[in-house]
This record gives sequence, structure tokens and C-alpha cells, in this order.
Amino acid sequence: MPIPADASGRTAYELDRAHVFHSWSAQKALDPIVIAGGEGSYLWDADGKRYLDFSSQLVYTNIGHQHPRVVAAIKAQADVLCTIAPAHANDRRSLAAKLIVDVAPEGMNKVFFTNGGAEAVENAIRMARLHTGRTKIMSAYRSYHGATATAIQVTGDPRRWPNEFAPAGTVHFFGPFLYRSVFHATTEQEECERALAHLEQTILFEGPATVAAIVLESVPGTSGIMPPPAGYLAGVRELCDRFGIVMICDEVMSGFGRTGSWFAVDHYGVTPDLITFAKGVNSGYVPMGGVVIHDDIAATFDERAYPGGLTYSGHPLAAAAAVETILAMHDEEVVANAARVGSEVLGPGLRELAERHPSIGDVRGLGVFWALELVADRETKEPLAPYGGASPAVNGVLAAARDAGLLLFNQYHRIHVVPPCNLSDDEAREGLAILDDALSVADAAVLRAEPVLVG
Amino acid sequence: MPIPADASGRTAYELDRAHVFHSWSAQKALDPIVIAGGEGSYLWDADGKRYLDFSSQLVYTNIGHQHPRVVAAIKAQADVLCTIAPAHANDRRSLAAKLIVDVAPEGMNKVFFTNGGAEAVENAIRMARLHTGRTKIMSAYRSYHGATATAIQVTGDPRRWPNEFAPAGTVHFFGPFLYRSVFHATTEQEECERALAHLEQTILFEGPATVAAIVLESVPGTSGIMPPPAGYLAGVRELCDRFGIVMICDEVMSGFGRTGSWFAVDHYGVTPDLITFAKGVNSGYVPMGGVVIHDDIAATFDERAYPGGLTYSGHPLAAAAAVETILAMHDEEVVANAARVGSEVLGPGLRELAERHPSIGDVRGLGVFWALELVADRETKEPLAPYGGASPAVNGVLAAARDAGLLLFNQYHRIHVVPPCNLSDDEAREGLAILDDALSVADAAVLRAEPVLVG
Repeated sequence: MPIPADASGRTAYELDRAHVFHSWSAQKALDPIVIAGGEGSYLWDADGKRYLDFSSQLVYTNIGHQHPRVVAAIKAQADVLCTIAPAHANDRRSLAAKLIVDVAPEGMNKVFFTNGGAEAVENAIRMARLHTGRTKIMSAYRSYHGATATAIQVTGDPRRWPNEFAPAGTVHFFGPFLYRSVFHATTEQEECERALAHLEQTILFEGPATVAAIVLESVPGTSGIMPPPAGYLAGVRELCDRFGIVMICDEVMSGFGRTGSWFAVDHYGVTPDLITFAKGVNSGYVPMGGVVIHDDIAATFDERAYPGGLTYSGHPLAAAAAVETILAMHDEEVVANAARVGSEVLGPGLRELAERHPSIGDVRGLGVFWALELVADRETKEPLAPYGGASPAVNGVLAAARDAGLLLFNQYHRIHVVPPCNLSDDEAREGLAILDDALSVADAAVLRAEPVLVG
Repeated sequence: MPIPADASGRTAYELDRAHVFHSWSAQKALDPIVIAGGEGSYLWDADGKRYLDFSSQLVYTNIGHQHPRVVAAIKAQADVLCTIAPAHANDRRSLAAKLIVDVAPEGMNKVFFTNGGAEAVENAIRMARLHTGRTKIMSAYRSYHGATATAIQVTGDPRRWPNEFAPAGTVHFFGPFLYRSVFHATTEQEECERALAHLEQTILFEGPATVAAIVLESVPGTSGIMPPPAGYLAGVRELCDRFGIVMICDEVMSGFGRTGSWFAVDHYGVTPDLITFAKGVNSGYVPMGGVVIHDDIAATFDERAYPGGLTYSGHPLAAAAAVETILAMHDEEVVANAARVGSEVLGPGLRELAERHPSIGDVRGLGVFWALELVADRETKEPLAPYGGASPAVNGVLAAARDAGLLLFNQYHRIHVVPPCNLSDDEAREGLAILDDALSVADAAVLRAEPVLVG
């Protein structure tokens, strides 16, 4: 069986281009970096070039790259037992479930494990439909919930459009987002009240008795990192209680420290019926996701079979990584660090950048979960790339940052600053400095758009 | 953070019962074994009791438990780089793709990686719909394709029923199955011809121009291990070619050695447009699945963005396990072993059991992929458990085998004998001997059903 003796660098690149089909892309447009290794907040490519990872990849390496305790735990479990079917029990799976419910809100005591976030959303929706006997699912515009059939149907971004083969039973509403308010609000409180009134109206016109669940990201992530105003999630909880609707909070991206708390709902004092998670639970070192289930929903399936499952549910190697990740996050106070770096360094630093860069229209976030809106005009708030698209100006910022050794997360006209939760202050400042330089590309596009005085 | 110092045994069991929500089950009905370790064809529980694993868990540990080369490869990769986002490239992902296309049929040169089989089916169907511009998907009764929304809709077993929230665009047909022929056939050739005529008629009445894909398991697995008659898959290929329909062969269970070839389609000389895989690709040591893509379909997404993806696509740790699994399968001739053990030991052994056990109505399979139909009456072929259900007789066989240290795979009235592909002859004989004893429970149920002569 001839395989390349050295698969690194150029060979890895060429094999990738020949044989790897990539997510969300036209395949010929790709020119990927070959990543060879990483440590903490840094990665390096096959040529040894180092990158400070302000993307946490797809916002999931909350504990950084190659955390030694988690790596050691994976290796130790690999020696004991890599895998076992879901029907059996296993100590790592049991412990992972225990550690997860311990950091979840009161009354949420069971965990259904999946391989990732999309399957978590699929299963949460299945639970809600069977628990209520209703079909319809309500979800927000400006949201992302995954790419399997139900998960993409409840998603509220353009990736849904080419996937709407069977959209029966899904309804989208607008969440609160003051910077681009659809409710003509001028304060956070007004935005909150109007968004709740809009949600109530939508429920009433859809028929409360037809709605199984409202699924929403506690803090919407990929779609713009929009922390809801105080009172919004509590208002959703009240509507769900009033109409017998299951409240599903999607914490795939916001959970496990990202916002400076274990779950983003902790900031708002709200207990959902179901929480979906993935990513940060074990920083993606081994694929894992799942649903944390409130006792009221779990009881529905005590005597009645739950009609869902998957081969790798509660995978021991993934569970071992989750156990050690959560223990290390406790011991190293990683969640508190995310909160502190956010409030003391990243937040102030980004707001300071906004003062100097005319391309920044808005800065918002919390913890290590920040978005910059890049705009062509601060007055009109015209985005520097179209909804669902890209632009040379934004691509230029990303390229300049990458050339200078900084990886950022991007959607359309937005730059997301989403480093690991255990980022140091110095690393935060290093990334801010590179971002500062890179934003000059966006500023130039803004200035070109402005009237030019000819002397 | 107090966690149990010793999480093994009783503690693992109690934490499981308190906090782990299991697949496909009423939660209170469960009494799982706590599995503590394994090696090759064996597992052991927390009390040290050993089990010969004739289930390969959910038919996925094709290379057995804790294969030392694969364990070492996982540990080595854990030291280098556990995870990286799909947008980048990585040597393990590149190599895994290369090794997979090398064992796939000619002309299939790209791999889209997922976390498991359901997502593989979801993505294959998305590709087919976008490639053809058509929506409808045809699939077989007696099939299982996964539990996410589209995957469960194309599934043809009772697990679909509680999940049919949006069944738009899926149509089921009957595949060939001589033992319970719906075509009133008496020979394999007749069954084949009539099944193809039925499929053609169904396509014609559904509207050929509305059908994006036919998705079928090359050898249906969980639904009964029914190797298609010679000519059936070639006939499906011809129908797909004639009507411009994408042929998706689901090899999640049948692939990577299970049938005694790399893919089950190899037995039939057929090249599908898309092959879905998971399980055997790395024996589930780290969750991974995917789609092998024919050049004709891949070209559709050269310039046009593919609107699907997932965070852990092409996960380096999973890919490292796949690379070493495939290399070890080559070096140790694991696929040939599966073919040989099947034809020399398991097949003859199971047929010999059928001669002595009146409860066995049919024996069929190939490689290490065998089904026994347990029937109350060989003439009427009345199953020993109802479709979609269980019975004391079948449960009794499973319990007797488990007590004697043998794990079997079961669906309804069927027992599946699906050990690892690298099973030894002695292990095969050991399992057959335990099964021989356990089947007396089923025989007793058959004998009770027969007329009793009172002397």
C-alpha cells in the first residue's frame, strides 16, 4: 500500500486539493493553510509560521490548543477503551454527564450525547415535538443551528435558503438587535419590550397550540454576537410557560465559558427546558455535542421509548476529553478568566479601536465573544460586505491579519474576535495590535467612499 | 469540584442511571452493563466478566477493540494536534481522504468528512438534490439510514414513524428479499427481475424528472442483512443512468471489510455516484463518517458553493485513526480474513445450527455480516417477535448468550452475527457454540407453539 512517506506541507496541501471536499465552499476557490501543530492560543503551519488564534477555529477551542491535561486524558482513555455502544454504560460517559449537569441550571439533570451541535439541535427538537405533541418550531432570523435537515431549517441565515427542501413546521421571528432594530427602538429596554411583543404576536398568529418549541441561541453567535437585552430571555421563558411551549436554548457556541459563564443563560437567570451544547464541552478535541434535559422533559421518556439515537452517543474518548476539559476549566478558573479578559482588555481594547477606525460601526460582546460591524458609512450603517456575501475590503482585513499572524472569524461584513477562554492579557493585546493595523484596509474602503476634496 | 474518586463499577452505573439519556429507549427500562475495557474480539465489564463481542457494538468495531496500532496512532496524533477547523488543511485529513478513495471504485476521488453515518446521508442527499435540481428521494423499506431529519425520513423501519414531521419528498419502494418476497418470486433471479420492474414502475409513477436520488444500503444491514441478488445493483445503476438519478449507496454498515470486500458494491461490480460511510472507516475509535464523491458530482461544486458543513469535518484525531485503521487492514489482510471466516466458519456453522434449531427460519449473509431469522413456524415464517417489537423468546436468547459471555446484535425477531473482521476461527467457533446453547430458548418457544400429543 504505497502512501507518501512524508505527508506534511506540500504533499498534505496537494492531497487536500485532490481529495478533500470542504464545507460551505466552492471547491476550486480554496487555498487552505496546512496546519501542523498548536499550543495554547497559537497554531503553526507546515512552514513553521505561527498564528495567534482569535477564531478558536470555529469558536470551539475554548481551552486553547493542545491543553496538556486534556491531551493526557485522551491518551490515557485511548489505552483503556476508545469506544463502546450507547446501550452499555461507561465510567467516562457517566462522569461527563455528571460534570455537565453540575454546571447547568437547577432541574436539568440528564444529558443526551451526540457527535456535534447539529445533531444536538435535531434531538432537542425531536424531544420537544414528542413532549408537546405539537410540530411547529419557532426560531430567530439571524441564527445558526447546524446543517442537518431540521437544524438548517430553523437556522436564520442565508445558508438555509439552498437547503429548504422540506421546511414544513418552521417559523422565523426577529430577535432583539438594537444596532439594526427592526422595531424602530432607540433603547435596549424598548428593543426588548418590542421584540417580546413581536414574538407574542407571532405565536398568537401561528396558533399557540401548534408550537412545540422556540429554539434560540442564548447569545446569537455566528450571526453577529448579539447579547440579548436584560429581560428578553426571561420574557421568552414567560411566553413559553404561558403557552406550553418548550424553550430550547442553543448554547453550542455560547456554552462552556465563551461568554464568561458556564452557559450564557446564567447571565440572565433563566432555566430553559433544553440546552444544546457541543464545541466548548471538550474544545472539540474529540467530536461531541449533546442536549441537557430538564426533569420535566426527561420524565416524558421514562416509560415511553425515545425514538432517536446515534452510534457514537456518549463516546468514551470524547467523554474523557469532556471530563478533563471541565475539570481543568474549574481548576484553572478558565470561565472567570474569559469574563475578566473580556471586561478588562478585549472589550475596552475593541472600543478604543472603534474610536480610531471609521470602518467600525459597532462593537458588542461579552467574555471572549466579540463582534465588530464593519460599515461603509456609520450613519447609514451600510455593511462593508453584503448579507450572505463577501467584499474585497473585508477579505483584505482578514488577509492582512493572517499575513501578520492573526486568525480571525468572519461572517459577511463582520469580524468576530473569539479567542480561547484562557487567553492571557498579553495575547489579547498582541491580537488587538495586529487587528489595529489590519483594519486600515477597511478604513481605506470607507474613505474611498467619502467625498474627496480636490485641492 | 467534588467528583467521585472511583467512578468505575457501581458508581458509573448509578451516575449513568441518574444522568445519561440513552438512544432508542424508555429510560427506566434500561439496565446497562458497565463496560470497562476490551481487546480484539473481547470486552469486559467492571466486575471483570468477559464477553465475546459478536455485535461489534453497533456493527462498527471492524478491526476489533483496542487495536494497538490504531490506539498508538490516536495517542501520537493527540500529541501533535487534536483538532483543526475544516477550512484549513491537515496532513492526517489529507491522507485519510487519499486512503479512502484508493479503496473506493474508480472515478470516486473526493471525500466529504462528517462525524457519523446520519450526517453522511444528509450530505449525500443534499449533494444529489443540488446536482440534479430535483427534490424527491427514493429509498427502500427495510432500511436504516440514520436519525437526523432527512436520514430518518428515508429510513424504512419503524423508527421512522415517530419522526415523520416533514416527510415531503421521500418515497419508499421494496427491495429484493426472497425469503419474504413481496413479488411472489421463487428464485433469486425472479426476485431480482421483479424488484427491478417494481422500482422502474415506481420511478415512472413518481415522475422520473422529480427524483433526485435513490439511496439504498448496498447490503441492507440493521433491517436484516439481505445481500441483493446478482444483477440487482447493476439494474438500479442502469435505471439511475436512464433517468438521470443519482445513485447513493449507503455503506455505513457494509463498508470497510464487513462483507469481505472494502465496499459491498465491490461484490457487484457497480460504481455509485455517492457512497456514504462511517463505522468501519476507523472502527469508531473516534467519531467519523463521510461521503465518497464521484467526479461527476464533485464537479458541480467546483465553482458553486456547497451549502453544507460541520465544525468537525475532517477532524485530525478521527482522521489519524482512519489512516492507521486502513493501513492496518491492508497489512493484516483483515478484509480477506472477513471473507474467509465467513465462507469457511461462520456461514457453514450458522447453517449447521439451522439444521438443528427449529427456531431458525433463514440464515443469510457474507463476510462477517450474518442474520438469523427466528420464527415461530418455518412454514408460515411467522416471526418470533413482531415487526418493530420484542418478545420474551428472543430476549431470552439474548440474555442466555450474554450470561454465557456472548454479545449479539438484535432487531425484532432477528439475531445478527456481526463480529469484528479480524475474528479468528477459534473465536468464531466459541461464539457459535454459545449461540447454539442460547437458541434452545427460542426452540422451546417454537415447540410450545406446536400441537402437543397427550399420551
